[in-house]
Amino acid sequence: MAAELNANPGLRFPTGLGTSDAETISLLGQDLAADLMGKVGFGELAFWLVAGRRPSPGEVRLFEAVLVALADHGFTPTAIAARLTYLSAPDSLQGALAAGLLGGGSRFLGVTEDCGRFLAGVLSTVPETDADYDLLALRAVQEAKAAKRFVPGLGHPVHKEQDPRTPVLIAIATEEGLYGPHLRLFEAIGRVHPQVLHRRLPLNGAGVCGAALADLGLPVDLLRGFALLARAAGLLGQIAEERRRPIADQIYRTVDRNAVYEP
Amino acid sequence: MAAELNANPGLRFPTGLGTSDAETISLLGQDLAADLMGKVGFGELAFWLVAGRRPSPGEVRLFEAVLVALADHGFTPTAIAARLTYLSAPDSLQGALAAGLLGGGSRFLGVTEDCGRFLAGVLSTVPETDADYDLLALRAVQEAKAAKRFVPGLGHPVHKEQDPRTPVLIAIATEEGLYGPHLRLFEAIGRVHPQVLHRRLPLNGAGVCGAALADLGLPVDLLRGFALLARAAGLLGQIAEERRRPIADQIYRTVDRNAVYEP
Amino acid sequence: MAAELNANPGLRFPTGLGTSDAETISLLGQDLAADLMGKVGFGELAFWLVAGRRPSPGEVRLFEAVLVALADHGFTPTAIAARLTYLSAPDSLQGALAAGLLGGGSRFLGVTEDCGRFLAGVLSTVPETDADYDLLALRAVQEAKAAKRFVPGLGHPVHKEQDPRTPVLIAIATEEGLYGPHLRLFEAIGRVHPQVLHRRLPLNGAGVCGAALADLGLPVDLLRGFALLARAAGLLGQIAEERRRPIADQIYRTVDRNAVYEP
Amino acid sequence: MAAELNANPGLRFPTGLGTSDAETISLLGQDLAADLMGKVGFGELAFWLVAGRRPSPGEVRLFEAVLVALADHGFTPTAIAARLTYLSAPDSLQGALAAGLLGGGSRFLGVTEDCGRFLAGVLSTVPETDADYDLLALRAVQEAKAAKRFVPGLGHPVHKEQDPRTPVLIAIATEEGLYGPHLRLFEAIGRVHPQVLHRRLPLNGAGVCGAALADLGLPVDLLRGFALLARAAGLLGQIAEERRRPIADQIYRTVDRNAVYEP
Repeated sequence: MAAELNANPGLRFPTGLGTSDAETISLLGQDLAADLMGKVGFGELAFWLVAGRRPSPGEVRLFEAVLVALADHGFTPTAIAARLTYLSAPDSLQGALAAGLLGGGSRFLGVTEDCGRFLAGVLSTVPETDADYDLLALRAVQEAKAAKRFVPGLGHPVHKEQDPRTPVLIAIATEEGLYGPHLRLFEAIGRVHPQVLHRRLPLNGAGVCGAALADLGLPVDLLRGFALLARAAGLLGQIAEERRRPIADQIYRTVDRNAVYEP
Repeated sequence: MAAELNANPGLRFPTGLGTSDAETISLLGQDLAADLMGKVGFGELAFWLVAGRRPSPGEVRLFEAVLVALADHGFTPTAIAARLTYLSAPDSLQGALAAGLLGGGSRFLGVTEDCGRFLAGVLSTVPETDADYDLLALRAVQEAKAAKRFVPGLGHPVHKEQDPRTPVLIAIATEEGLYGPHLRLFEAIGRVHPQVLHRRLPLNGAGVCGAALADLGLPVDLLRGFALLARAAGLLGQIAEERRRPIADQIYRTVDRNAVYEP
Repeated sequence: MAAELNANPGLRFPTGLGTSDAETISLLGQDLAADLMGKVGFGELAFWLVAGRRPSPGEVRLFEAVLVALADHGFTPTAIAARLTYLSAPDSLQGALAAGLLGGGSRFLGVTEDCGRFLAGVLSTVPETDADYDLLALRAVQEAKAAKRFVPGLGHPVHKEQDPRTPVLIAIATEEGLYGPHLRLFEAIGRVHPQVLHRRLPLNGAGVCGAALADLGLPVDLLRGFALLARAAGLLGQIAEERRRPIADQIYRTVDRNAVYEP
Repeated sequence: MAAELNANPGLRFPTGLGTSDAETISLLGQDLAADLMGKVGFGELAFWLVAGRRPSPGEVRLFEAVLVALADHGFTPTAIAARLTYLSAPDSLQGALAAGLLGGGSRFLGVTEDCGRFLAGVLSTVPETDADYDLLALRAVQEAKAAKRFVPGLGHPVHKEQDPRTPVLIAIATEEGLYGPHLRLFEAIGRVHPQVLHRRLPLNGAGVCGAALADLGLPVDLLRGFALLARAAGLLGQIAEERRRPIADQIYRTVDRNAVYEP
């Protein structure tokens, strides 16, 4: 059957990712076994796969710092959903992981992408001085307020003063020469927003990750994808812990035993 | 409400993963911002999250080589499913990723886990010499044949002579001092199986990855999880390419236009 | 442990759906075994579960006609994704079904919800005469055109003249006394849109289903849910057929064998 | 492009489900609009799609009674997972539904399929008298005990004396002339198991549903699919209630606020 299909003249599915023949496996135009395995890190490969270009060592360091920052946030709704799914269907690890990732939508994991997109939208022209950045930031916060929209990346339910991830990621970007317009605008928002909102909110970790990924040149519409990749590692950690020290059944019972019928 | 719930005396959900308070975020008992971001790689963190211990640099190299080997295999059924889901629901990147991962079951991604489990099952006692390994391998292949079961990790539809990933991963494990009983038994199976099966099959890449992960001391029941993590990166690459150069609509039309009604 | 948790004074999870004790199972305030099983149809129960009220027999007939209309549309991208996932992970039927449903997003299954929401948005005041409906419809189509937005429910790639489901569903709604403002406005759009768009497009089946569900008083934000429920039945049919007469492997090979590397 | 693909001579994807042309939509060889909509119920269609034959009215009644019995069991782990996913990603209803269904694996929803398969496996020959059924049942329970396996469908954590669904479903099957060998064997197991297990366990609702579906001639390997379809309706009810009266955030906080770090 393969032979017939090979001959199919009207069909052509182009790809720049993986192909193979009897002797070699190619990935991204490289020989997977000879050039990538043991020579390219996993985060480096993930960047390369999405961006279509190999990152520099400094880019890899910043990128992996973002993934590390986003991997696990404790008992989030998505972590709990993955554990409960694993309890119900322990035979299907992929189902538990997928269930956890499906919570990676607008509310919890979406801030990274929302923030990157917001900053990119504001940066139609790139300012030169800090004062220009402040002016641009001020206008953006005012417009968001007028439209009754939140500024993505501002505020955190727990870290009310400062999110500890924010200065660290900015420092890494600076060290690696990757502190670009998105991070700079994000910091300007941090300086000017109290003039508009009349209170000081922290720049949160999910937001700074979005700014850093945008400064790395990654496509804004796929930033959520990196949050999901990071979270995949965190969810595996949650599932591994669920196997060693289960709590999902206790969570289920806590809800079920305290259910109250109300029409 | 949080205050009430804080006081809830009957409830206690232990975790060794992530926790946080107003100033710090902890992960695996470390200060996430101060000790992990920029200092620990993403693959290293994924290993640590699942295994509960920090891997050595050599272990990270072997582990990431496995992830790189498993990240993308071209137009697999799972890659196609992710692209088709993205075509239908482009607003939900997490759905396309989850759909792709859900194919990570017994047939395609399962070989890694099956092979690790098979080898671990055979290794109830660890042999000393190569000859002892060969004897153990011979018995294992004979038993599998008698039970009409395949030996996981043996054979490949495309790489009929040799899977190029296999010798490379064994070389990396050896370089890093991590060539252990699972890889050794796997190689023994490669030597002895023709005596039983009367033809020579290659040791495939998914199988050698399972053997290497088992030699890294990772829990056999979670090996599929690492294949899924690796594949998450590959699927993001597929979705990113689908955005730049779409083919899912052509795949859909190819099937739909050649549908034939047969009762 | 259950005893401790039962006593948990700070916790209370209200529900009007299912509860049970040692002797009875309640659902929607009814005795499941005595009052529902064998007495209430499955579509009827689905309506009741979402709307919180029991539908009349006429409402059930219209509602089930919608579900029947939406159940299967042949080799859609979602049907193909479900079959490919089943090929990869035949041990996990729930994964194949979930993968198929994950394509139920904005593009393919979303029209039903989009159309219901569009009509409900236009109907801030309910007109009295057909002429008033036409006026309202005209303004709505003009506004959509000015905003460069499609009018949901208008046009179909295959049924370019008329979608055969549309008149049938309108006839059923009329027979059952359930032809309400959403269907009436939808028909008005069918009459007036050529004045604005300068060509005649059919009112499609997904759109008329959305209008009918809205006339049934179902919550507009959940209309996609009914399309998903209908599709769940269709996907089970696809998976059942894939078991009897598999095609997923041929689809996979068709793509894989015609892959062309292009950087 | 369609024209090119239409001409594709090597490709042929047969289906007995849905096809369409410009004027008509066919489903199962019927005219969807003329013959199915408004004339065939949703449960009836679901049966037909999977079994490939139209059920009789009595079969529809029994089948829908099974779906009604399985639709919702209150705050199950899967219902909670769906609500938590909806909390995290309210923009993606399909993701919340899929997450809930992914828990439909071996432990919670699997009993229906396991029981049907167990009974079908025992019934290699169909007995004639009740005494013969008892003998067959006795041997099956003894073998399960010897193999340290549970008998699927036996026992329930809440309904310790009797599951109220069991006698009702058996009565419906009897009324409709559909009480067949699987239900009869299931009842025999209910009579004889105390001789082997030395305590009396109830025949549970999930089990009797599996027996009834098997007596309806539905393929044993797809019984889980019907439990999933039923549960899809229940999950929509849970999500609809979560919109009206949210509890997922309280569940999340209950877990998060009572998290305790333990290495």
